[in-house]
Amino acid sequence: MTYTAPVDDMRFVLDALCDMGDLASLPKFSEATGDLVGQILGEAGNLAAGVLAPLNRVGDEQGSVLENGVVRTPDGFRDAYRTFKEGGWNALAQDPAFGGMGLPNSLAFAVQEMWQSANMGFALNPLLTQGLAQALAIHGSDAQKRDYLPKLISGEWTGAMNLTESQAGSDVGALRTKAVRDGDQYRITGQKIFISYGDHDLTENIVHLVLARTPDAAPGSRGISLFLVPKYPVLADGSLGPANDLRAVSLEEKLGIHASPTCIMSFGDNEGALATLVGEEQGGMACMFTLMNIARLGVGIQGLAIGERAYQQARDFARTRVQSRAAGSKDPASIIKHPDVRRMLMEMRTQVEAMRALAYRTIAEWDFAVAAGDEAARTQHQDRLALLTPVVKAWCTDLGFDVASLGVQIHGGAGYIEETGAAQHLRDARITSIYEGTNGIQALDLIGRKVLRDKGAALRALIAEMRAEPGHSDFYDLHGQLGQAIEELDATLSWILDRGEDEQTLILATAVPFLHLTGTVVAGWLMLKAAVAMAAAVNETGSESGTDFAAAKIATSRFYLANILPRYRALAAQVTGGGETIMAMDDRLF
Amino acid sequence: MTYTAPVDDMRFVLDALCDMGDLASLPKFSEATGDLVGQILGEAGNLAAGVLAPLNRVGDEQGSVLENGVVRTPDGFRDAYRTFKEGGWNALAQDPAFGGMGLPNSLAFAVQEMWQSANMGFALNPLLTQGLAQALAIHGSDAQKRDYLPKLISGEWTGAMNLTESQAGSDVGALRTKAVRDGDQYRITGQKIFISYGDHDLTENIVHLVLARTPDAAPGSRGISLFLVPKYPVLADGSLGPANDLRAVSLEEKLGIHASPTCIMSFGDNEGALATLVGEEQGGMACMFTLMNIARLGVGIQGLAIGERAYQQARDFARTRVQSRAAGSKDPASIIKHPDVRRMLMEMRTQVEAMRALAYRTIAEWDFAVAAGDEAARTQHQDRLALLTPVVKAWCTDLGFDVASLGVQIHGGAGYIEETGAAQHLRDARITSIYEGTNGIQALDLIGRKVLRDKGAALRALIAEMRAEPGHSDFYDLHGQLGQAIEELDATLSWILDRGEDEQTLILATAVPFLHLTGTVVAGWLMLKAAVAMAAAVNETGSESGTDFAAAKIATSRFYLANILPRYRALAAQVTGGGETIMAMDDRLF
Repeated sequence: MTYTAPVDDMRFVLDALCDMGDLASLPKFSEATGDLVGQILGEAGNLAAGVLAPLNRVGDEQGSVLENGVVRTPDGFRDAYRTFKEGGWNALAQDPAFGGMGLPNSLAFAVQEMWQSANMGFALNPLLTQGLAQALAIHGSDAQKRDYLPKLISGEWTGAMNLTESQAGSDVGALRTKAVRDGDQYRITGQKIFISYGDHDLTENIVHLVLARTPDAAPGSRGISLFLVPKYPVLADGSLGPANDLRAVSLEEKLGIHASPTCIMSFGDNEGALATLVGEEQGGMACMFTLMNIARLGVGIQGLAIGERAYQQARDFARTRVQSRAAGSKDPASIIKHPDVRRMLMEMRTQVEAMRALAYRTIAEWDFAVAAGDEAARTQHQDRLALLTPVVKAWCTDLGFDVASLGVQIHGGAGYIEETGAAQHLRDARITSIYEGTNGIQALDLIGRKVLRDKGAALRALIAEMRAEPGHSDFYDLHGQLGQAIEELDATLSWILDRGEDEQTLILATAVPFLHLTGTVVAGWLMLKAAVAMAAAVNETGSESGTDFAAAKIATSRFYLANILPRYRALAAQVTGGGETIMAMDDRLF
Repeated sequence: MTYTAPVDDMRFVLDALCDMGDLASLPKFSEATGDLVGQILGEAGNLAAGVLAPLNRVGDEQGSVLENGVVRTPDGFRDAYRTFKEGGWNALAQDPAFGGMGLPNSLAFAVQEMWQSANMGFALNPLLTQGLAQALAIHGSDAQKRDYLPKLISGEWTGAMNLTESQAGSDVGALRTKAVRDGDQYRITGQKIFISYGDHDLTENIVHLVLARTPDAAPGSRGISLFLVPKYPVLADGSLGPANDLRAVSLEEKLGIHASPTCIMSFGDNEGALATLVGEEQGGMACMFTLMNIARLGVGIQGLAIGERAYQQARDFARTRVQSRAAGSKDPASIIKHPDVRRMLMEMRTQVEAMRALAYRTIAEWDFAVAAGDEAARTQHQDRLALLTPVVKAWCTDLGFDVASLGVQIHGGAGYIEETGAAQHLRDARITSIYEGTNGIQALDLIGRKVLRDKGAALRALIAEMRAEPGHSDFYDLHGQLGQAIEELDATLSWILDRGEDEQTLILATAVPFLHLTGTVVAGWLMLKAAVAMAAAVNETGSESGTDFAAAKIATSRFYLANILPRYRALAAQVTGGGETIMAMDDRLF
């Protein structure tokens, strides 16, 4: 077994940190009982470990290839996809009106973590499809929902996002793809790049969402519209029409996720690709942001997931690789006995747990934002979700890469050999800090839209909640350390809010350190909360059951506070003292 | 031009931070005048940029391959090697008695940086050959030196280090390769792995240094002997004899440095490979450590070098890639105008400069250790060299990888596409934290052999020197920040020295953070020293010449102090507070 789903920690985080019980008491999620959650996690874990994880290496080695205009996925992917589809795994958090199960997103993303750990190159496809289906359920017309949503939710078809053009990357408003009205439809012409699973051989049809510009549209992102462009359009009688005017021109040679075909897509080589409008003309960015916010949470989960996979592999290696003696012993020892290897393993494990806590907790805010009984509560949860979404995306992906790199290091020379597999995790993880908005873009979103715009209100509310967290006498020292970090975060926030108009560039220059500061402190709060919950549970039950899990959680919590949390000092110093020196050097002198 | 040697900064570091002038005033290095240094750096820069750098990508794409038992290097490598050899570039710091130029190592390693920036897959070969020649000049017999040294120094032959076996990695004492006396020679039998350039088609002959065990040798590393095992032995008449009994069995598929063939070497498939002893029987580790210490400095230089190359590429991309508007402007801007990109570029550039300062300064200690007039001074410089060698190796390679990763990030989506080349730097850099002793091993060397053994004397001497550094009124604030960091390093050292016998594991567990703390603070001292030197020079001359260079250096110095140096707070906290939590969790619970 190359991967075992960490079901115990997932359940613990869902129950103790995400208030899954409270969620299941709300009418919308009343089916999300502990039994069902356990059953779903168990079955998903089996599929991830038994079917998807064994294909991770072959996916990397073979990659997807474009042959005669058609993308062919690696050996075994078609069978695996069939199994995945038959399991109905896309449906978990989808609208029951179109075949979904209506379960909480926090559960669906826990399951998502498993797919991404097992085989990120495979799992990017359902990740995008699920997000696309959720966005379409909100923004699509009745006809679009009727014709396309059930097939996306069942997994019979997949979805692809088409945003980027060669001149329009982070600046999506610079796109040039054209949409011209043709009866009650549109014709699309243009070229898109970096389109994950823009074509493949897993399903009969692919549903593209494409950003394009109508004639006379406003310049920039305000003038952009969103279109649904199927590979095979659904006809009035519900059958599939002839192939639409779109094709994969070529695939990129990438550092990692080789199994995922990254397509250059051409729309409208001939008469223009048939399309229907999603939402309003020139209202495309609102729809796309719904999808992108979902996808950003998904990419944050990928960072966590690769970290988990890399940790499991490094741990297994450290247990079996014998080298040198342990201190105080004359016999050769597994390297897990060596202090520096132990440090790296603890860093890997603890950061994975911290990422899981932060990511799941944030996604649970989404669940409460849609299901809570009163509007004030819904707004509060929505604000928290909006605040932490860029943090989940950027913090979890940067850490996921670091964790994968530690995994290589624990393997020593063997880690540099591709056959070992540790290097694949590093290569795969590297994209997550880039796509769905680079981590720099995430940090600008955090500081601009989520902090400055509301004058720090949402972050101050979170700081107040962290300050008010009940303590536990076992962790007196840790509460003190965390308290200092929270005050430093608060002071840094005040410093940012106090900058004048002429100092905004300084704030933007240290947006990434500020995001990391936020992630580091908030995850520290959740790790300590986890330890307190464990200690309380052990005291209450007095039972020996679960004692190993409790001991490990308390150990990782203590490790986090002593080894990871102190980074806040360096990050806060950089935010308040670094900006000026970042911008001081003339362009010309670089 | 994909690479331009940073000759100005190299000269500045050599002159202002390495006291190259003082060095040239010593009899041993009297030829190292400013004119000659400038000429050598200029010529080397041309060769690196014009010949080696253009082959970096083809080396990555094609890699070296093993065909019919012979390793074939990528297209263009044979011609490039011939040019390199004809330039006599191996000879710089080698013994004049055998064809060397007897120049300072600090100069030779500055040149080495250029080779590694231009083409690390190519340049690993001369790096190892030069170190092997220097070690052989110290430990070899007269006959070995006569027969092999001139050819290594001229580049007609190359050298390879054979240490690792599958069960003997970091624990080299576990090796099993056998050496049995046969007349006045030995016969070697065994298999070695991870042998860089163990075979290739660039030269007629390859000189292997092989660690092996004689019959009845002591167990562990004490019983190891070192042997010279030529691919073609030199006969009594100076001609080459028949092929020796050794061969490359296979090559590894690696994450990076594809051009460098990483061989599994088999010695003695038939009658045993003919070998001569280097040094004494069971005295092999002393000889090998001479070579390894040189190679460790070289690998540190590789980290720096990849960082420099990645910086240049990211800077050029940031200048030409247009995306979004700059703050306060309505026109599209090069991304170098965007604050977050600027932050990343400054991090790249500053860390590269800091690595160069630390690495060159350390290597200059080696020069003074061999050339200084009185023995007390030589010893002092030798101690400083020994102290900082593991820091150069580990700190520069960890940072080099981080810098390469920032380079990928600046490229955005394009950075993940192999064609761009940014990802190659990341892949190539990753080995440097692993080979020549993992960075964990370096940290144990620092804390064990270099700090605990002399009760902190060498580090305390360095701290005293840093404290006594003359200040400059332009940098009052920076002196204050650095002063705090130095005191924290001193306090951390005291904390370490105060630990009892039963607490040694805690110290070992945080050895890597301690190494990073040391590197961060010492490099901070050198960066500030650089700024002071620049300000003094500008004031003295009052001239405008060199003002751009001075302004840039002062800007990077300020950046380092405000953005990089603050990491010391997190690192010191981890050393003094983290060890216990690293070792607390039972093996079983991972």
